[in-house]
Amino acid sequence: MLILSTEKLPDECKRLLPNARDQFNEDDVPKADILMLWPLQAKVFLPKAKSVKAVQTFSAGVDDFPFSLLPKGVDVFSNAGAYSVSVAEHAFALIMTLAKGIGKRDRTFRPYPLTGVNLMVLGGGGGIGSEVARIGKMGFNMYVIGVSRSFKRPELFDEKHNISELKDIIGKADIIVDTLPLTKLTDGILNYDMLSRVKENAIIVNVGRGETVVEEDVYRLLKERKDVRFGTDVFWRKNGVEDFNSKLWELDNFTGTPHTGGAYGNDVVKTNAIIEACKNVYNYITSGKAENKVRIEDYL
Amino acid sequence: MLILSTEKLPDECKRLLPNARDQFNEDDVPKADILMLWPLQAKVFLPKAKSVKAVQTFSAGVDDFPFSLLPKGVDVFSNAGAYSVSVAEHAFALIMTLAKGIGKRDRTFRPYPLTGVNLMVLGGGGGIGSEVARIGKMGFNMYVIGVSRSFKRPELFDEKHNISELKDIIGKADIIVDTLPLTKLTDGILNYDMLSRVKENAIIVNVGRGETVVEEDVYRLLKERKDVRFGTDVFWRKNGVEDFNSKLWELDNFTGTPHTGGAYGNDVVKTNAIIEACKNVYNYITSGKAENKVRIEDYL
Repeated sequence: MLILSTEKLPDECKRLLPNARDQFNEDDVPKADILMLWPLQAKVFLPKAKSVKAVQTFSAGVDDFPFSLLPKGVDVFSNAGAYSVSVAEHAFALIMTLAKGIGKRDRTFRPYPLTGVNLMVLGGGGGIGSEVARIGKMGFNMYVIGVSRSFKRPELFDEKHNISELKDIIGKADIIVDTLPLTKLTDGILNYDMLSRVKENAIIVNVGRGETVVEEDVYRLLKERKDVRFGTDVFWRKNGVEDFNSKLWELDNFTGTPHTGGAYGNDVVKTNAIIEACKNVYNYITSGKAENKVRIEDYL
Repeated sequence: MLILSTEKLPDECKRLLPNARDQFNEDDVPKADILMLWPLQAKVFLPKAKSVKAVQTFSAGVDDFPFSLLPKGVDVFSNAGAYSVSVAEHAFALIMTLAKGIGKRDRTFRPYPLTGVNLMVLGGGGGIGSEVARIGKMGFNMYVIGVSRSFKRPELFDEKHNISELKDIIGKADIIVDTLPLTKLTDGILNYDMLSRVKENAIIVNVGRGETVVEEDVYRLLKERKDVRFGTDVFWRKNGVEDFNSKLWELDNFTGTPHTGGAYGNDVVKTNAIIEACKNVYNYITSGKAENKVRIEDYL
């Protein structure tokens, strides 16, 4: 059982996975049973990995993974949940900056109350979504509406909906947090038609993937409706690379961060995320029951 | 029993206090038993209020109240607690904006984790301080250190200290929230000597009164220590008027808002605060037991 990792493995990983190597050369790849890597790295490794049985990503999102190169029967496991606390905090930081007008020097800005308002979490069943719901409920007594395919922590939600109902219920939310993965189903789901249904003074925050929102459409909405505010940590890719330049930065009712909510910004977060990936591989090997098995049909 | 109010009273106040008038002329003041007003208005009304037995302020802070004009035996009641939820939310908005670098476009900023860190609340026993502690504990599992004379909700604090111990313990805090009223004791308490003891990467936020921090000293600290971040909703008075201009705005490790955390920014917050003041006057009249009796010796 040979496991190859493109990231240096912390000691806890080495204890769990004594057969894992974080230093290896090209000749080792055809013998590998399990690959641990970032999605874009799979383009290089997958064609050479003739014995591979499973792939574990370090990232939570796998929309960059080259699923077309994946041999039949090879499972991919994402690292969903590994960044939940950090990204959920980040989502609330975006919400609160927009709600309270932090950094605005003139007194024309009217802060917006948070306690008790309606919080809608898109992708509310996942790791990040559940933690966003928890902070909303425990910290600010919010009424929490979840929109998701499944719910890891259903007790945190006052209402649970399927994403097919979004059009009919999006107008109920004071605050909308997008934690969606980018799949065929979610690509561009927040388009002009959907966005224009939001409540007066709505705050929309994206910590999922840029492309779940249509950039032109949210720009148009923010120009037309000064009451709506939008914040994002994730941006739209140009030639496959996330581009933090956006004309949204010109707008007064926008704020953002250049994808620093997860591992990028913090070594502790990154190390913990790698350990989570190792635990999942350990469970896969010992019990065959790993978490976050990717539904490949959502992407291909 | 004649009650005069300088603010228009909501219906709930009129039910509680049928003898209260929010429209009156100068001749009514000498007959008033109770005055409801903002602290600075007392300068005009107190000298004429020959029958006054008690004064209820609409504001939580009474540092602007002209205590030297107060006849002996007249009690002053503040409206402490009436803005707690709104101001505590605002404190967290300042913390989170600074912790996560919201609005910074370049990727050099490293976000700072919030969950599980040490939160120190100065004035932690009061209404705002208790609500800050609650959000920290419930929302972000923080270890909460209270520094206060008394504690309304002691169960929210992992440690409780008197303000005389501040010098010895301030270095334990990752986040410091100043909710202090401005009194003889707290004036300039966060001076250079005190501020220079803060932990690496500390975030300091002031939602109490500007003058509890020494403006020059915090400016010096932020220049010397780029790791420390400071946010404030309250500014320093010049000629008795809070002046939102400050050279702190030039600094990258500073952010603020022009005292919009309380009633200024939100009509609902203001109306609810007036109702709180009316309830307190009602309790004073019916049972003699009103809350937030001001210790005049703290100010004179």
